[in-house]
Amino acid sequence: MTDFTGWMQGIQSRTEAALEQWLPGPQIAPERLHQAMRYSVLGGGKRVRALLAHAGGELCGAQPEKIDAAACAVEMIHAYSLVHDDMPCMDDDDLRRGKPSCHKQFDDATALLVGDALQTLAFEVLSQPDLLAQPLRQLAMCQLLAQASGSRGMAGGQAIDLASVGLDLNQTELEFMHIHKTGALIRAAALLGAYCGDCDEQALSALDHYAKSIGLAFQVVDDILDTEADTATLGKTAGKDAANNKPTYVTILGLERAKQLARDLHDSALAQLQVYGPRAERLVQLAGFITQRQF
Amino acid sequence: MTDFTGWMQGIQSRTEAALEQWLPGPQIAPERLHQAMRYSVLGGGKRVRALLAHAGGELCGAQPEKIDAAACAVEMIHAYSLVHDDMPCMDDDDLRRGKPSCHKQFDDATALLVGDALQTLAFEVLSQPDLLAQPLRQLAMCQLLAQASGSRGMAGGQAIDLASVGLDLNQTELEFMHIHKTGALIRAAALLGAYCGDCDEQALSALDHYAKSIGLAFQVVDDILDTEADTATLGKTAGKDAANNKPTYVTILGLERAKQLARDLHDSALAQLQVYGPRAERLVQLAGFITQRQF
Repeated sequence: MTDFTGWMQGIQSRTEAALEQWLPGPQIAPERLHQAMRYSVLGGGKRVRALLAHAGGELCGAQPEKIDAAACAVEMIHAYSLVHDDMPCMDDDDLRRGKPSCHKQFDDATALLVGDALQTLAFEVLSQPDLLAQPLRQLAMCQLLAQASGSRGMAGGQAIDLASVGLDLNQTELEFMHIHKTGALIRAAALLGAYCGDCDEQALSALDHYAKSIGLAFQVVDDILDTEADTATLGKTAGKDAANNKPTYVTILGLERAKQLARDLHDSALAQLQVYGPRAERLVQLAGFITQRQF
Repeated sequence: MTDFTGWMQGIQSRTEAALEQWLPGPQIAPERLHQAMRYSVLGGGKRVRALLAHAGGELCGAQPEKIDAAACAVEMIHAYSLVHDDMPCMDDDDLRRGKPSCHKQFDDATALLVGDALQTLAFEVLSQPDLLAQPLRQLAMCQLLAQASGSRGMAGGQAIDLASVGLDLNQTELEFMHIHKTGALIRAAALLGAYCGDCDEQALSALDHYAKSIGLAFQVVDDILDTEADTATLGKTAGKDAANNKPTYVTILGLERAKQLARDLHDSALAQLQVYGPRAERLVQLAGFITQRQF
């Protein structure tokens, strides 16, 4: 087994290559739209969701080649959500991954269409003929991704987030928001990877618990970083949530208790995975990476 | 066989009922998002795409209950595109189907999320378990809808439309835009209906030709109506394309030649359908309805 960094870089570069293949070329009409789609997806990000898909797939013995499509689909949904999230009518953020956000680099109308078309492309990738030998399984993957992304998943979380600006949320309400806004897609990523292999109910259940815990931990760490890091390190505007009067784990719990919560969630994520031994190794490493990250 | 108006009203009301079932209730969190989704989808529109799905399905002997999901999915994609199209950064239109457009009734951020979540819901509907007995066919439907909606279909057409403002397009360029912007989804509607029945290559090919011709005819008639009708009749802002310096069939061809083109496209649409007799009756009636409409 290669070291974690080597594994991670391998997944990142194979995901980048697969995304590059799926995205229409910059010379294909409408050129500007395709250039903006590529700008928004390629060449950036830690590909946490792709890593989760591959780690989840490894738990169930899936071949990496099978997982690539699922990993790309989830990364495309994530990228679309960032493009729309950055738009002036939402978070109005000029910076993303250290570059001008899509609507700054191009324009608002293009950013709107980029997000729309990236979402579509995710479902196009996931419904491609012969992705899996089991079409019923593949349909279930489309269903899972749709449920995770829609109004009762990620998009719903965005709406709750918008509605919560300036409100005094308690920890339960904040958690409800994050379970939708980021948690649903993170959970989908891990499960979609597993669907590409031989997953049984027990593995799916362990993975479900893992992904929910890690999804929340990811957000807690995000809030901690937003408080502690500077804009250059983050590659996006730091301190923005506090400035926007948005509730965060740090504002609700304070810095120390937020850090403890991240550690507890990390430990909880791994609780059901010990039985899987080496097959869960990447999930264990990834949990550490996500909760100790400084990006 | 009931008369066309009776058939049409039957499809419209069963589609409305099915959409109502698929859309999350207005009391389900996030409430405002779900209310805005329902506002944007329910209670309006002629449901041309649902009619096409059912007429296409009838050609191939599909059961109406099977077609409902496909019809709803296409109507959801259409509704999402209207919501985003009306936003200030796109066409900036305050009126839709005689009511304030979504971003006027709610707000820009909500309209953005409404469009996003409606697109997702379309794929959720189409990938539902046990929609068809043939999962491979169902996957092909997801694939078809995705290709018709994405950057090489409807969303791409929007991009081409945006880029063409103030340009002197010729008829070929205008046609290229409309084939993407509206034609791709109209074609998908008819084919998705057929996929719900026993469709062979010949029927799909005839339907493909029909839908491409009717899709263009629909747009030509749209341009004629935009010139001739007033805002109250249209339920959307009339004369807007001309005011925005957007090329239309009327500005390129003149009113009379545009009307002749609509008639020619109508006749061409029906050319391959005669062999099907009564099974193609609804398609024939629908072609007449679409090209002679005054809405």
